[in-house]
Amino acid sequence: MSSPSARPRIVVVGGGFGGLWATRALSGDDVDITLIDRRNHHLFQPLLYQVATAGLSSPDIAAPLRHILRNQRNVEVRLGEVTGIDMPSRAVTLADGERLPYDCLLLASGATHAYFGHDEWSRDAPGLKTLDDALAIRRRLLLAFEQAEACDDPQERAALLSFAVVGGGPTGVELAGTLAEIARHTLKREFRNIDPSHARVRLIEAGPRVLASFPESLSAKAQRQLEKLGVEVVTGTPVSAIDGRGFALGDQFVPARTVLWAAGVAASPLGALLGVERDRAGRVPVASDLSVPGHPEIFIAGDLASVVQDGKPVPGVAPAAKQMGAHVAMAIRARLSGKPAPAFRYRDFGNLATIGRMAAVVDLHGFKLSGLLAWWFWLAAHVFFLIGFRNRIIVLINWAWAYWSYQRHARIILGQDKAT
Amino acid sequence: MSSPSARPRIVVVGGGFGGLWATRALSGDDVDITLIDRRNHHLFQPLLYQVATAGLSSPDIAAPLRHILRNQRNVEVRLGEVTGIDMPSRAVTLADGERLPYDCLLLASGATHAYFGHDEWSRDAPGLKTLDDALAIRRRLLLAFEQAEACDDPQERAALLSFAVVGGGPTGVELAGTLAEIARHTLKREFRNIDPSHARVRLIEAGPRVLASFPESLSAKAQRQLEKLGVEVVTGTPVSAIDGRGFALGDQFVPARTVLWAAGVAASPLGALLGVERDRAGRVPVASDLSVPGHPEIFIAGDLASVVQDGKPVPGVAPAAKQMGAHVAMAIRARLSGKPAPAFRYRDFGNLATIGRMAAVVDLHGFKLSGLLAWWFWLAAHVFFLIGFRNRIIVLINWAWAYWSYQRHARIILGQDKAT
Repeated sequence: MSSPSARPRIVVVGGGFGGLWATRALSGDDVDITLIDRRNHHLFQPLLYQVATAGLSSPDIAAPLRHILRNQRNVEVRLGEVTGIDMPSRAVTLADGERLPYDCLLLASGATHAYFGHDEWSRDAPGLKTLDDALAIRRRLLLAFEQAEACDDPQERAALLSFAVVGGGPTGVELAGTLAEIARHTLKREFRNIDPSHARVRLIEAGPRVLASFPESLSAKAQRQLEKLGVEVVTGTPVSAIDGRGFALGDQFVPARTVLWAAGVAASPLGALLGVERDRAGRVPVASDLSVPGHPEIFIAGDLASVVQDGKPVPGVAPAAKQMGAHVAMAIRARLSGKPAPAFRYRDFGNLATIGRMAAVVDLHGFKLSGLLAWWFWLAAHVFFLIGFRNRIIVLINWAWAYWSYQRHARIILGQDKAT
Repeated sequence: MSSPSARPRIVVVGGGFGGLWATRALSGDDVDITLIDRRNHHLFQPLLYQVATAGLSSPDIAAPLRHILRNQRNVEVRLGEVTGIDMPSRAVTLADGERLPYDCLLLASGATHAYFGHDEWSRDAPGLKTLDDALAIRRRLLLAFEQAEACDDPQERAALLSFAVVGGGPTGVELAGTLAEIARHTLKREFRNIDPSHARVRLIEAGPRVLASFPESLSAKAQRQLEKLGVEVVTGTPVSAIDGRGFALGDQFVPARTVLWAAGVAASPLGALLGVERDRAGRVPVASDLSVPGHPEIFIAGDLASVVQDGKPVPGVAPAAKQMGAHVAMAIRARLSGKPAPAFRYRDFGNLATIGRMAAVVDLHGFKLSGLLAWWFWLAAHVFFLIGFRNRIIVLINWAWAYWSYQRHARIILGQDKAT
């Protein structure tokens, strides 16, 4: 329902870092932008694990897309789901049947979990991509301790207090480290029949080391910091089975009522609508200007794009998505004025990962930090980049409080009412 | 699974104001208390409408019961649902089959919505009692504006922008006032196809005036303040039908896609387990010491108790529940030491209701306030009574921010993922 206009119509699919940064970069352009997202909010995904582990509440790390873009008059925000792309006549179709014609299209619909052909594991090993995922994981974690407190059977109780995180990338490391902190510190003194600090937290990585995208020395440091926090790190062993009772490593079955999945990522299924070749993870290999080969009017940004630079894939991290988004804005501008688009070049400012309370690793092109100093660096960077002024203050206060008190204020179990 | 002990066993059902205040008042006593709740948190119910209307997030007004009681060593907190009371052998049974024997029992399980024999209305007119209720209402409100923005049909769009709140008590007045504020101020400039300030907000009260528990002059002032905020107040007319398209007042059908229920309250069904006479709302008439007649070892506090004082029922408000809880602690102590329990006497400190931004009414035994001054009074009282030091600061910051910016930070639609 856009008003009739002769201005070029830009459709942006996805309000994550790629789509939002492209949209904002076009704020001064004489175009009509429609930003479509299935959810009403932009999510600061790097802090999503904090919602899952009850340290932050949902609104702390999310802001309504409409609100972020309220003053950008060339944008219309639409809550909706894209179900088709009519490439010959240049229009996307939404689940409610509406057709949105475009002159340029940006697909920035991100990524989802992948279970490597074991989709049946998704029920017992939830992954972490959306706020609803985070609240579901929070519910599981907190309920496991509650059920253990009420349990008379020592074996069952041990299984309830056995937690596993599958995947030793940044998300897995964050989840495992924070889980150990919750068990050892946050819940201290609160139970009468169990000692939460006896909970076992295992981090399972199929590859040879955690945080494989970091230099080996930092991986080793990260593993030591995890172990100091109380996490048992298992490397070099893939998980071979997961069910409601636990998981298997080779022939060995490990009872664990709570298994979280942080191992696999697959690009959004929207890439399949383009009918072009995709890589193993479902990403779309793009031309140097981030357009789809053969379709100079369609662009990809963020986790859905497969970009190889200097022989290495550009990683699926927030800074890369933002840079791609900003580049697509430039490429669209070039295309609309008939000029050739410049080639995208990823600027890698470094790599950060947090592990838990006062523990992190930082790699800034060979300048390496770990431990407390790295944690402060990580904290400052993340709060600084959090969208919206208000959120930053609240998140800082929450963190300061959590730091001094070891408490996590969002330990509220939601979603118990079947009806809602 | 309590450890064997010769100390008197107190079972408290419900961690609301009644149950929690009784439990805390017994902190110094030589007893073993088990506090059972279906949810893991104490909820500051007077601010629940703020979660429903996206002004606060869930953890702002809730705290884990375990955490509140962590230092009270004579309490064990149990997440669980009471399904039976074996009065002859003095034990409650839980849904998981466990039996908890008691020497004294306190039932403080509160109230739920009542649809006056029209339970079929519950699907289309949700009520507000739990955090899950609040998040479901928040989702409906925000989705109505989103759907209106995407809607081409003027009639359907008007129905989507038509909101009704049934029931002119404090909760209905708060919801209607805040809804009008959201439509007129918060969402300003954020939509492109609709003008949210054209939304119609109706407050329907079957009786002759809103806030019937206040003096007539304050009811009139409240109605004028509501109308100034943009609410259409309809009194003297009961709703005769509700479905997914709207509601009926007598013969007149009013299209409204969002109808909220704030009209009826029924006491918790646990009262029925006692097998004693109950009043029309399901409340249990209690003896002067708040015990169940014929069962001096069973007490009732809060919304489940029917207490008549000076010919008038004690109202179902937080201060009354707290006072009853504290009194039950005294009565239990008296009973355990073989002394007669004193009679409960409700101290009415006054009556407050908020209407919306800078609008409220206050009645302190004839000393009446309304408007801005009443609003500041209401705000101070509610933030002061909010449990937990941390929450107070965060809530104050959120409120200060909302006040100056007209923004509501929790406008995040949750619960869209079918799987969670």
